[in-house]
Formats: sequence, C-alpha cells, structure tokens
Amino acid sequence: MPSGRTVAELGESALLEMLIERIPLSAGQELLGDDAAILAWPSDEKLLVSTDMLVQGIDFDLGFSSCRDVGWKALAVNVSDIAAMGGRPKAALVSLGMPGSTFVSEFEGLLEGMIEGCSAWELSLAGGDLSEASEIVVNVAILGSATTAPVVRSGAEIGDALCVTGELGGSGAGLLALQHGLEGTSAEIDAAIARHRRPQPRSSEGPILGRLGVTAMIDVSDGLGIDLLRLLDASQTGCELRSSAIPIGRGVSDVAAETGKDPVAVALGGGEDHELLFTARGDSIAALEEAMVGLGCDVSILGRITAGEPLIDGEPLREQEGLGWEHLKNR
Amino acid sequence: MPSGRTVAELGESALLEMLIERIPLSAGQELLGDDAAILAWPSDEKLLVSTDMLVQGIDFDLGFSSCRDVGWKALAVNVSDIAAMGGRPKAALVSLGMPGSTFVSEFEGLLEGMIEGCSAWELSLAGGDLSEASEIVVNVAILGSATTAPVVRSGAEIGDALCVTGELGGSGAGLLALQHGLEGTSAEIDAAIARHRRPQPRSSEGPILGRLGVTAMIDVSDGLGIDLLRLLDASQTGCELRSSAIPIGRGVSDVAAETGKDPVAVALGGGEDHELLFTARGDSIAALEEAMVGLGCDVSILGRITAGEPLIDGEPLREQEGLGWEHLKNR
Repeated sequence: MPSGRTVAELGESALLEMLIERIPLSAGQELLGDDAAILAWPSDEKLLVSTDMLVQGIDFDLGFSSCRDVGWKALAVNVSDIAAMGGRPKAALVSLGMPGSTFVSEFEGLLEGMIEGCSAWELSLAGGDLSEASEIVVNVAILGSATTAPVVRSGAEIGDALCVTGELGGSGAGLLALQHGLEGTSAEIDAAIARHRRPQPRSSEGPILGRLGVTAMIDVSDGLGIDLLRLLDASQTGCELRSSAIPIGRGVSDVAAETGKDPVAVALGGGEDHELLFTARGDSIAALEEAMVGLGCDVSILGRITAGEPLIDGEPLREQEGLGWEHLKNR
Repeated sequence: MPSGRTVAELGESALLEMLIERIPLSAGQELLGDDAAILAWPSDEKLLVSTDMLVQGIDFDLGFSSCRDVGWKALAVNVSDIAAMGGRPKAALVSLGMPGSTFVSEFEGLLEGMIEGCSAWELSLAGGDLSEASEIVVNVAILGSATTAPVVRSGAEIGDALCVTGELGGSGAGLLALQHGLEGTSAEIDAAIARHRRPQPRSSEGPILGRLGVTAMIDVSDGLGIDLLRLLDASQTGCELRSSAIPIGRGVSDVAAETGKDPVAVALGGGEDHELLFTARGDSIAALEEAMVGLGCDVSILGRITAGEPLIDGEPLREQEGLGWEHLKNR
C-alpha cells in the first residue's frame, strides 16, 4: 500500500518542480515550464496529432495495475495511434488530474512510468498540467511525425488482404485473469497479465508498414471487431474474416479455460492489444512479412477486403456480440 | 434544467459522429476521425504546444456557468497560453470525460461553446477523445505558431517596466458575485460575471507584443501575485510593484463592497483574468502602448524590474496573503 505525504500537502508548485527536475529536455525542445513549449519541426515531416484520456475505474484499476504501469500505458496508447498512421512519436503533453489524497509516491509512480515510456519510444515530455479531480485522470496529447504519406483508415480496396501484427486477446485475457484472481497461477497467465499492464505499441513496425505501402491501418485498441468495422466503414468496404486465422495471444486459452470464455471471443473483443490491423495489396504481402519478421513481429492474414457486408466465417460481423469496448455505452 | 437523453444512451460512437458532423474541417487539416490528425506546418513557423485540464467542481461550477461557457473557457485558457508566448493558436485536441448521466444537451452545449471559440480565434479542432468520468473533465491541448521568436517568462531585465494589459480582478469578482447570489443586481456586477463566464484571451495582442520586443510575458491565469512571481523567478529578478497602479476591473469595486473584500486584493489574487503581464525596456513602451490602444486595449505600468526581492508598496510580495490559486493546495 502506498503511504507517506499526499499531493495536497505539497501543492501544484512543488509537484511541478519535482516533475521538471526529473524530466530530461529532449533534442528540438527549447524549454520546459513556460506557458507553452517551443518545438522545432522539420519542414519535410508531416505533423500528426492525437489525444487519449485514461480515467481511473474506467480505463485502469489501481488494484490491478501500479501507478507506474498507468503512466506507461497513458503514453503507450497514444504512441500506438501515431504508429497506426505510419508515424513516429516525438513529443507528448500530459495533463494529470488527481484527488488531493493521492500519495506523492503514487504521483512519482505515474511520472516514472512515463519517463520509462519516453525512453522506450524516444519521446519527449513537452508540457503538462496538474489539476484536482475525484479520481486519477491522465490525458496525453501526442505529436508525431511521418516522413512518408500517413496511412489512414479509409484506404482499403476490394481484394486487399486483411492483416494483423502479433497476437490478439492477451490484454483482455490478462484483465480477466486479474478480475478472477488468477495472477501467479501459471507463466502463461502471467504473460497475459504483463501484456495488460504494459501494452507494447508497434512503434517500430508502424512506420515501416507505412513505407511499404499498406493501404489502410488502425490500431486494435477497443477490440478487433469494433476497430475492424471502423476501418471498413471508413473505407466503405466489407470483408471476409476467418476466425480460425485470428492469432490467439499467449495465455488467452488458459485464461479462457479458467473463466469459461471462448478464446476467439476474447481475441475478437478484448481490446487494448495495440496490434496494427492493416490492409495491403496481395503483391506487397511477401515484402511486408519479411520486414516484420526481421523485427520479430509475426503477421497474420485474417481474410480479405470485399465489396459486400463484413462477414466472419460467413456470418454478418455486425450482428456478433462482444466486438469490443465502447466508452459510455458498456456500463 | 437540462433534460432529455443521456450520453450513456447514445454511447461514444454516436457522440463522435455528432461531433464530427458539426465541426468544420479547417485549412491545413486533412481529416478528422482517424487515429491521428494530419496537420500541415509551415517551415518558417515555430510550433508552440500547451495543455490545460478543467475539472467540474474545481475549475468550473455548472451552477454558475453553462456548458457552453465551459466549452468556450476550456479553449480560452489555452489560447491565452499561446498568446503569452507571442503566438497564434492554430489547432486544438479536446478530450472530454463525463458521467454517463450527462445529458446529450449538455454535451452539445460543451461542443457549441468550443465551436464558438474556434470561430473567434480561427482555431481548428484537430482531434479528441471521449471517456467516462465521475465529473466533467475537459482537457485541451493546443498547437500554436510564432513567426518571431516566442516570448518566454525568463527574459525580464533589471530596469524593465512591468506592464499589464486591460484590467484585473473582473473574473474573480464575477465568481464572488455568483457565490453571493448577486447576479442581476447591477450592470457593473453583471459585467464581472460575464468576464468570469467568458474569458477573453489577448489573442491579437500577444503576437503584436511579441513582435514589438517585450522581454518576458505570462498570462494572468492563477492570479497577478502568483503569476508575477513565476515570471520574476524564471527571470531571476525582483520588482517594485505599486498597488495603486493595478488596473481594477469593471464591477470589482461593487462586488468587493457587497462581499466585504478589498478590491486590490481581488485584483491581486483573483485569477482567470487572462490578461498579459509583460516586461519591456523603457524606450519601447510608447510604441507598445500605441499599438495596444489601436486594438482598444489599455496598458498599465505596474512598476519596474529590480535586482532585489519582489516588493509591493515596499513590502515583500512573497509574504502577502492571497496571491492567487494553486491547484491541490487551495482546498
């Protein structure tokens, strides 16, 4: 259990000083702690911007994840959005709302997780804001760059292969395992839990996929089902998806067996895997697979893009239950 | 009282659709609703970034301000940060957390206030995120540009004049008036209330002050006292401030009289005025004043920058009570 001084005992100014002291200034960043940060932006790079808010009790549970994990995750989900455009993350702005009763050690944990993330993804913390709130709220706005044309969701074409990096369902299975008190029961299950606590966005793979000409891309954040429908709707296409082709993540089968779930359902609706779902022309697949294998990243071909309705194993995908998470509705 | 459907009845997807439908795409912005927005950034412009989180019950009270006011204010405070660097706002990313029981009409109000702000400041909404939270939390991350060198807090030099645009204390007096049920009792008091509900950042004045060579600048967001100390500390200087030179805002004296406060104290610690506090060399003051008068904006000379301790009327400023708002500490 965390203990010691609370953030209300220190106040915003002392917390900001603590923060500024620990955060290294990055290349291209001129100052920290002014009204706004000044960033240099190379003229040959497109500027990508995105934002994501994580709320305690909704997006994370401090009974299941440490503050350090939450700090990491708040950056990871944003890095993943930039990767899904084929871009590289460059700078993040972090707003942190928290109750006055939050322990300083918890604030420090959030900060440490973010500093770890910045180091992992060569990302600078360019600014932020501290506020009081009823629960911990971490908002990250991210700036990324793309040197080639960014990959949007709307570019899928009929006949393209529908592909995904890595494995699905691990994060969802990890959360289920934590909810059922299964931590420590097997290495497989703990692997899924680790995946839930520390999502690993495809920050290296995204830009390479972009350069190799994938036609559309989105990251799997809310669930394969819901994110696939977003890509298809943006592209005004359908698909034929084979459930047997969905790569089931490590530990998913074990957790599913223990909790009475179907592993494919966990992989289809689990969310938070932060793999990249993309479409590509058939003649580009071999080069894509080779490049991804070089990074230690498998690629699975889930099916193909069609002119019809989205189908899974021949059935309408939209009519399936549990396609993923929708904020405000899944309560 | 708001009524009708709640946001939980609609869910994130339908709310996002509503949002995307109403927000016009701006010049230099290529799409809305993908993983990240793509912005064009001219190579001769410096990129300024800042973020601010507003939390219901802490930063605003829906008993005193409408959702429309809150949407406006969430952008205004960020526009003010960019103005304080001598920059122009260009694009904003908005994250919105809200309880599922929030009425759709309240969500629409927030959105309308933001659209009004975007129109007033020629700002585009480049992206956003919706989440569930215990109270309404609006986070804005803003991108601005500066064509001349941005003005930082740390550039004040000994002998510089210490100046401020416009009037102070209006917003703080407006909040006091609302807390004391004084709305509608006089035009003066209602002017202060309007100032609290609809802050008007100095978005035109900031870039001009920057071009005319002010040496340091900060916006008065938390209170003249606390923000002045931030500027002085960053510049490693002191000041001699005359309280009689502080421009007292419209309605402040009336509210102070009704509530038993000192108008100067309200102007010194009230905060949220979003005026620009800046320093300038003596030989540049005449040109600055002329340019500001041309915009209908008065400039007051509050005192001068010194090598000593910050003083107000000869007394140590740091030892005064009520210099402004500090998050997490003022509770």
